[in-house]
Amino acid sequence: MPRPSPRYAQAPALVAFGSAVRERRLALGLSREALAHEAGIYRSYMSSVKRGCQSVGLVLAAQIAQALDVTPAELVAKARL
Amino acid sequence: MPRPSPRYAQAPALVAFGSAVRERRLALGLSREALAHEAGIYRSYMSSVKRGCQSVGLVLAAQIAQALDVTPAELVAKARL
Repeated sequence: MPRPSPRYAQAPALVAFGSAVRERRLALGLSREALAHEAGIYRSYMSSVKRGCQSVGLVLAAQIAQALDVTPAELVAKARL
Repeated sequence: MPRPSPRYAQAPALVAFGSAVRERRLALGLSREALAHEAGIYRSYMSSVKRGCQSVGLVLAAQIAQALDVTPAELVAKARL
């Protein structure tokens, strides 16, 4: 089970990023499992990202963006960050 | 001393992000100390970011971007991510 980022859990930026990931995933018709697999990330980590409980590092954010077929900058912009 | 992200140290995305931070810092004429202080981040952490040794989390990336007077998306885009 990933260590959530307790210190930053539910920080507005993380909640916004989690929503942007979910929005894009749904737009592509991807399941959570498929997105996690495509990004090479544990499903449990991905669900903590979705809940805004994970201060995703740049490397993993880039992996998630690639799996969502957007650039990391586009994904961060979708989160209006 | 911050725990560098050994697993991702020198990952291309991190090296690019570190360069983008440095480039923007120099453009603003900020010293490393001033940037670290403005971002509310330890100077040692900031230098590991600059060296591409830190998979910066979104929350800290947002703090760094704010200190550099750009949005996180703009900073990530400057890194061509």
